[in-house]
Amino acid sequence: MPFSQGVRKMANTFTKADFPVFDAYKELTYLDNSATQQKPRAVLERVEKYYREENANPLRGLYELSVKATDAYENAREAVRKFINARSIKEIVFTRNASESLNLVAYSYGRANISAGDEVLVAISEHHSDLLPWQILCKEKGAELKFLECDESGSYTADALKAALTPKTKLFCIAQISNVFGRLNPIKEFAAICHKNGTLIVCDGAQSVPHIATDVQSLGVDFLTFSGHKMLAPMGIGVLYGREAILDRMPPFLYGGEMIDTVTRCGATFAELPHKFEAGTVNAGGAAGLHAAIDYINELGFAELERREDELTSLAFNEMKKIPHVNIIGADDPRDHHGILTFTVDGVHPHDIAAIFDAENIAIRAGHHCAQPLHQFLRVPSTARMSLAFYNDEEDIRRFISVLKTLRRKMGYDR
Amino acid sequence: MPFSQGVRKMANTFTKADFPVFDAYKELTYLDNSATQQKPRAVLERVEKYYREENANPLRGLYELSVKATDAYENAREAVRKFINARSIKEIVFTRNASESLNLVAYSYGRANISAGDEVLVAISEHHSDLLPWQILCKEKGAELKFLECDESGSYTADALKAALTPKTKLFCIAQISNVFGRLNPIKEFAAICHKNGTLIVCDGAQSVPHIATDVQSLGVDFLTFSGHKMLAPMGIGVLYGREAILDRMPPFLYGGEMIDTVTRCGATFAELPHKFEAGTVNAGGAAGLHAAIDYINELGFAELERREDELTSLAFNEMKKIPHVNIIGADDPRDHHGILTFTVDGVHPHDIAAIFDAENIAIRAGHHCAQPLHQFLRVPSTARMSLAFYNDEEDIRRFISVLKTLRRKMGYDR
Repeated sequence: MPFSQGVRKMANTFTKADFPVFDAYKELTYLDNSATQQKPRAVLERVEKYYREENANPLRGLYELSVKATDAYENAREAVRKFINARSIKEIVFTRNASESLNLVAYSYGRANISAGDEVLVAISEHHSDLLPWQILCKEKGAELKFLECDESGSYTADALKAALTPKTKLFCIAQISNVFGRLNPIKEFAAICHKNGTLIVCDGAQSVPHIATDVQSLGVDFLTFSGHKMLAPMGIGVLYGREAILDRMPPFLYGGEMIDTVTRCGATFAELPHKFEAGTVNAGGAAGLHAAIDYINELGFAELERREDELTSLAFNEMKKIPHVNIIGADDPRDHHGILTFTVDGVHPHDIAAIFDAENIAIRAGHHCAQPLHQFLRVPSTARMSLAFYNDEEDIRRFISVLKTLRRKMGYDR
Repeated sequence: MPFSQGVRKMANTFTKADFPVFDAYKELTYLDNSATQQKPRAVLERVEKYYREENANPLRGLYELSVKATDAYENAREAVRKFINARSIKEIVFTRNASESLNLVAYSYGRANISAGDEVLVAISEHHSDLLPWQILCKEKGAELKFLECDESGSYTADALKAALTPKTKLFCIAQISNVFGRLNPIKEFAAICHKNGTLIVCDGAQSVPHIATDVQSLGVDFLTFSGHKMLAPMGIGVLYGREAILDRMPPFLYGGEMIDTVTRCGATFAELPHKFEAGTVNAGGAAGLHAAIDYINELGFAELERREDELTSLAFNEMKKIPHVNIIGADDPRDHHGILTFTVDGVHPHDIAAIFDAENIAIRAGHHCAQPLHQFLRVPSTARMSLAFYNDEEDIRRFISVLKTLRRKMGYDR
């Protein structure tokens, strides 16, 4: 039986051949896609084209080049809107990354709406970016930060959520897919439960939007945040989706050019959505790159992308399960991992695991994955994580597994 | 007498030939450099090289590619440090742009240190990005926002500053070069006056750092802010310089990954400078581009860059002065303009001015230039602005002047 049985071939243009980094490093097995993804040629070329043919300060100029820059930027916004099925481009705010998007909600919505005695409920598996802004906000306001716990498989239940919500719960913050478990949370169901309670739901989509089709209207979330660089786009561009009625009532966050209507010595009136939240010169080059990334994903299609990632995840999961002393964090079903396989190896420190993989040109991650409270909850100080993308292939998984098999031997065990 | 008498030639590699946008648009005369600059090939190639050969999530990985990404990012920080002669890389915080840098100071330093009854003094010519964060801060804290006024030539005097400072003045905020006047303010002298009063000085360097050599130690400023995109670098990367002793005592601004030391359910301790202020995945590609931009400027040399920009400014200024009904805002000496010539034409609306220039493929700006209070102070609703960079040439100025000469005729005057 061949190693990769069950993993179907992809059209050639959607494989590594399309990613220049794999030309530069023919031996590289890149399995740190949850941290950041590599960039296809089409994205790099789009950014370069922006700077060669469309670069000016967008939104401000009355000349042709500035109109082109504005078009590049606003067309990217429309592409994002369509990609996540938002009702209006007013609901799409460009930020620097998902972390900034979450901070924007905490600073702007949070400071205006959270008061002493209120509660903010945060899932215990949240990334620090979806925990610290709420922790700081609650301290400042005298509100209470509460945690929703999951089981060892990373599963949160509707009953636990219902039990945790109180009349004082203003916000519930949870990732659609945890960056440690890889498990898909039932956001649509959770949003309905929250709304019945008068609670808004903030959904961190950093690990989900690049990997599964997203429909914010169907999900019913109030806010959704994600980063471009985790979905083929350049660094420095991220997105905050917010429901228009909510964004509209929120005060600005950053202040400066572009986000104003009029300014006097004593006061100012602010621009309409979404520009109200985009102070200073915008990152039109980054937005153009994100647009190209979305076009690339759309051409590939989520059906194909998800099928591919699921098959690769299953292959890796099933082979890992055969290796003694390897423990996968989270669910016992590969379909609950969405390309993220976090693990420990008995007796081997995760940093040693990552170093041994690095010596074989395999890039994985070790540490707390910016989720220290989750690691405290799981009573494990740190873990190793391999995370894949559609452009990985069976050979990557084969190499990963073959090194994993010899890990303990290399550390002096099992001789 | 030839038109361009007095403008010396530049080495070929530092002219338009190095900027791909001028290959794409051979007829383009780009005179909106204060809004954003065009990018030389070396910068675009450096960013592309980063994504082809060094891309990973910096600071987090234990594998080779992540070490390369970290090196690209931290080497850029060292290049910035050297470029502005800061004492330590701890004093260099990467932000999205100058606007975010100023907001960071207002949110972090401002909210921790400004109280009811305190005063913040802001120069009347400030860009909205260096006005609105202080206006909002003062409203929130019950502090008083006061303005330092200049004369019609854009000059601020030491005596006026001394008279405006009171024992309650916590901050003085002023650009080193105004984006409307182009005049260089005596920051070193002002910093000394402020410090004698126990006042910190926040200097917006967005229009100065790209155009004159900067030495933060000699200037004595407490904070300096600037944007990469106004100095040949890509959009989405900016800098906050702050004195280490001050930054060290400031609370974080954005919260998330990278900026923490440890996190528990109840609290967190934060990373050392400068990472304390850099939440979430950093923009290493943008930083690499800024590094290449600095290398490019260093190779050209500020002596040459300033000489070139001064000569082109003088040429344009002197020709503009010969045209009836053209009024230059600010000083009557071209050496006080640093490439920025803001003007009005009697009877012609600035938007019409910009539109007529656009029809001739000349990109200039019209409006309030994000400085509405200054325009109210000058009693002029809006102005036109041409702003140049070292890569402009005599032919650009000649074309600009020849259109300016015919402007009023085109609008039906002077027939």
